[in-house]
Amino acid sequence: MRFCPYAERSLLVGSAKGIKFEVVNVNLVDKPDWFVAMNPPGLVPTLEWGDGRVLGESLIVSEYLDEIGDASRPLQSSDPFQKAKDKLLADKFSQVISALFKIMLNYHKPELDLSPFDDMLRYLDRYEKELKSRPSQFFNGDKPGYVDYMIWPWFERFELLGVLVGDKLKFPKTRYPRLTEWTSAMLEDDAVKTWYLPVEVHEQYMRSRFSGGATDYDFLVRQQEVKTSNL
Amino acid sequence: MRFCPYAERSLLVGSAKGIKFEVVNVNLVDKPDWFVAMNPPGLVPTLEWGDGRVLGESLIVSEYLDEIGDASRPLQSSDPFQKAKDKLLADKFSQVISALFKIMLNYHKPELDLSPFDDMLRYLDRYEKELKSRPSQFFNGDKPGYVDYMIWPWFERFELLGVLVGDKLKFPKTRYPRLTEWTSAMLEDDAVKTWYLPVEVHEQYMRSRFSGGATDYDFLVRQQEVKTSNL
Repeated sequence: MRFCPYAERSLLVGSAKGIKFEVVNVNLVDKPDWFVAMNPPGLVPTLEWGDGRVLGESLIVSEYLDEIGDASRPLQSSDPFQKAKDKLLADKFSQVISALFKIMLNYHKPELDLSPFDDMLRYLDRYEKELKSRPSQFFNGDKPGYVDYMIWPWFERFELLGVLVGDKLKFPKTRYPRLTEWTSAMLEDDAVKTWYLPVEVHEQYMRSRFSGGATDYDFLVRQQEVKTSNL
Repeated sequence: MRFCPYAERSLLVGSAKGIKFEVVNVNLVDKPDWFVAMNPPGLVPTLEWGDGRVLGESLIVSEYLDEIGDASRPLQSSDPFQKAKDKLLADKFSQVISALFKIMLNYHKPELDLSPFDDMLRYLDRYEKELKSRPSQFFNGDKPGYVDYMIWPWFERFELLGVLVGDKLKFPKTRYPRLTEWTSAMLEDDAVKTWYLPVEVHEQYMRSRFSGGATDYDFLVRQQEVKTSNL
């Protein structure tokens, strides 16, 4: 699903690791039968080989891709303790995500509870502190690694809160000086550039998702078709 | 915490991997200050080195111990796909656990909802099916491995449901022939034997935990003291 941050995790890793893959986007509201048959939880990302092997769950798929891809570009530390700590950082980012989603998936409701925003910022403090404690530009070193890619998709979407709800939920960059520098550096990374979507596109998806009608999953494809036919 | 199944995961792996460690049990209802200061989530297992390094979360601690312990006894597959699939099996066992806990942590309440029991059995079907599809005695092969140790602590406790609630929640062994064989084989494993507690002990802990008074975390230590003084 082109707008899914979990799927983006694995796309980023696939690209960073030089893995060749085909992307098949699915409608997650009205799931295709072949998709549910292939992977009963019906979630993305789902990795499929064509020989019957199927793997789901973004963190597990991403670790797997790191292991099978370009060995000269390891995304995880060779030090077991550092690797374990990074797994914990990636895993516990679910706290940030769940606070963010509590607002984002209810933004259209008249009585929107804004209190999860403060929780989200508090959980993010841990990542600012952790990055501050590391001497490198990225969590991983001088190139993005596992933690960087696992948390990035939500940084791409933080601005959405302000756009959808208003200035009260504007992302407070001054609270996170290191993460703000990190965001700029991430935007220069090739894998990030490959899958990046601007906030206007995320906004269009979100407004369609909660419009009350059918979600329009295909507007990017149609724009692409227009561009192609104009060539 | 001597009766915690999550802590048991890492104890099993530590023993299987021949790692030397000291166990410090903590009272999880009235947590010691030093414990919360060391690891703010205040959960077990918490791994501490003494040089300031601390690591939490049972699956991550267990994977870490597998990486640093006896290399001649790998608990995870060297095949990345098999390893990823096993991680998923260990991770998704949280579905079984959460259904089990819905009953177990409410067993003393007058209006106990028994419906999570059926969910639990349904989630367990996946593990029966998976084990059936493998040619080996254990998930891992001819010795227990990562999946085996990650799911075992709850198999040690399934009988508790029948004991605490009654025969309606008796574990239906006939529904899981392979897992039943597997349980017998696990009971012969040295690491399992080291940390195994019989159902009567788990029962005594559970009854104390929900007695309305202070939880008695120390009854095993007192029994040990009596035995020692009788020598």
